[in-house]
Amino acid sequence: MHAIEEVDTANRTMTVQAGCILQTAAEAAEEQGLLLPLDFGARGSATVGGCVATNAGGNMVIRYGMARDMVLGLEVVLADGTIVTSMNKMLKNNTGYDLKQWFIGAEGTLGVITRVVMRLRPHPRSQNTALLAVDDFDSVGKLLHWLDGNTAGTLSAFEVMWPDFYEFITRQGSIHRAPLPHGSAFYVLVETLGSNPEADAESFETVLGEAMEQGLVSDAVLTRSQSERNALWEIRDDVLEFFKLGPIIPFDVSLTIEKMESFVSDIREGMDRLDASICVVFGHLGDSNLHLILGNENPDAFDYGALETLLYESVERYQGSVSAEHGVGLSKRAHLPRSRSEAELQLMVGMKKMLDPNNILNPNKIFSADKIAAT
Amino acid sequence: MHAIEEVDTANRTMTVQAGCILQTAAEAAEEQGLLLPLDFGARGSATVGGCVATNAGGNMVIRYGMARDMVLGLEVVLADGTIVTSMNKMLKNNTGYDLKQWFIGAEGTLGVITRVVMRLRPHPRSQNTALLAVDDFDSVGKLLHWLDGNTAGTLSAFEVMWPDFYEFITRQGSIHRAPLPHGSAFYVLVETLGSNPEADAESFETVLGEAMEQGLVSDAVLTRSQSERNALWEIRDDVLEFFKLGPIIPFDVSLTIEKMESFVSDIREGMDRLDASICVVFGHLGDSNLHLILGNENPDAFDYGALETLLYESVERYQGSVSAEHGVGLSKRAHLPRSRSEAELQLMVGMKKMLDPNNILNPNKIFSADKIAAT
Repeated sequence: MHAIEEVDTANRTMTVQAGCILQTAAEAAEEQGLLLPLDFGARGSATVGGCVATNAGGNMVIRYGMARDMVLGLEVVLADGTIVTSMNKMLKNNTGYDLKQWFIGAEGTLGVITRVVMRLRPHPRSQNTALLAVDDFDSVGKLLHWLDGNTAGTLSAFEVMWPDFYEFITRQGSIHRAPLPHGSAFYVLVETLGSNPEADAESFETVLGEAMEQGLVSDAVLTRSQSERNALWEIRDDVLEFFKLGPIIPFDVSLTIEKMESFVSDIREGMDRLDASICVVFGHLGDSNLHLILGNENPDAFDYGALETLLYESVERYQGSVSAEHGVGLSKRAHLPRSRSEAELQLMVGMKKMLDPNNILNPNKIFSADKIAAT
Repeated sequence: MHAIEEVDTANRTMTVQAGCILQTAAEAAEEQGLLLPLDFGARGSATVGGCVATNAGGNMVIRYGMARDMVLGLEVVLADGTIVTSMNKMLKNNTGYDLKQWFIGAEGTLGVITRVVMRLRPHPRSQNTALLAVDDFDSVGKLLHWLDGNTAGTLSAFEVMWPDFYEFITRQGSIHRAPLPHGSAFYVLVETLGSNPEADAESFETVLGEAMEQGLVSDAVLTRSQSERNALWEIRDDVLEFFKLGPIIPFDVSLTIEKMESFVSDIREGMDRLDASICVVFGHLGDSNLHLILGNENPDAFDYGALETLLYESVERYQGSVSAEHGVGLSKRAHLPRSRSEAELQLMVGMKKMLDPNNILNPNKIFSADKIAAT
């Protein structure tokens, strides 16, 4: 159940069994000069089947999309034991309903994905990475558009860190050196993936230089080596470090970009009211995805429910999504109605009842047995 | 029902009503410096709702995907009159089942799409176009990979014309001048969309020059103006010209690339056996999509059924798709089982029965009433 069945270089696809580890699959593609453009911190333990069942996102979504966008075909076992083999390898196939879409992101509640055909891309030959300091949120949004408009679709990461993230991770005594001095309003890790190392490096510098001239960027560090690049990404990826602060909850939400600043400010005010001191914000801003870490340095005062309510009530007020890329599972089930209407939820439960009438597939994930019975 | 409700430049989305003409929507995006990356010959009459309901493809799929890939949200009216409003504007939203996917490409048989949120892209600032002559099919495949690997994802068109297409459209007396002499095995129209006019033109020339040095390309014409570019595209788009040859049937199929040459050769042999003289082949090869025009110069000998059977039997034998981008409707309904298994079809009919139990939505499209009753 974890084999790589094929890497098809002519059609640039790979066929893998669901239990294959993401990193193993990515390495098999790379050996053929191809890219499986799905990557995130848990690459060494996540399975491809899990990535597809949860529609995983990660660090390259702005360029290549989420797991859904790279699935060409799949095989799924239905609740009644029927094996539906739909291992399409073609980019275009409009023969009836695109039923693979029903199972991608359904968290195993509609069927068990057993095999997958993934679309591969040419492996990039250049990678340009920089950390930028930005003075205000308006400039962050303009910078995103400036870079995306001037890098011809090669922008693959636009990761924003609020100061509470960056300054804690690079604090004195940390294993991470601060590539830019503390004191800026925002820090943005940007990366492009291209095909011409020399020309791409030159144009990356030019485009960033122009952003500085326009006042969108106040300071910048460009990496000159793979180790410098790794050091930047390690800052962005060292989320576990925040567990040292005290009990925390990591959140994964989506908001349209013009609402983000006000949303974060509301959350901070709420945290003050709750006398809860940990509020760390970062995210894949190019994908409308914010991560927040809320908690309390005083474990005795840590109130899980209050923090969760504060966060999800705000998401609802701002018409955001309570789950951007992490899915629903058990923990966000109760909050689903904050982002989805009753009509949408009824339609979803109808699908669940059709495909899994006895509620045997990953039961109680996304929808509780009670919700299903009541719909 | 045909209004553009909003072009949101901050989030780079547009909200349109289903009856809006594609070209109107695209122009509204362009006025804001943004690109609605869906384009094909019928842009002036196709509606956005129709594009989404049929998951339309077109000329930029290799770069931006099909209609499905640019839909962020939609509103749909169900068979029971329920309006499901799911007008998401965020790139990431994993809150339960992604139900918009159920309706995209379902040809109006599961619900009536009334409004759509489309993702927009930065409008490209450079466009480089060339017509290439290629000596053999193996080189066509290698050329696709060479260009895609060396243009960093900016390759937006890779349109292959077999000689019967190119040489007829540019024959003596035609309104189209032949930019390359007749006599080559394949003609490929390639285009990149970039952000830096000067640098992109230079690298386009370099990459094509290297392809010639490798022997992948035997002759090339690069366009130097918009009118030259238009002239190339007019050759590719002048499909109606083939109606002058006699009664014809246009087909739209998908095949994995390594099977295409042998497939086309089988079709030609079959046409010889049927004594049918018109066999024209072209396609979006980067998307695994071939278009074939089959017919007979002698109208009295034109046998619709025989040509259709020849074509679709071959598609089935080569495990291709009987509909790449044009959908199923009525005319391909009988051929659906050639590309989809009984298990897949049963699952689809189950969905149809759940969402449209009285078969009132675009009845008999994709599935006949008899098929639904029998499943």
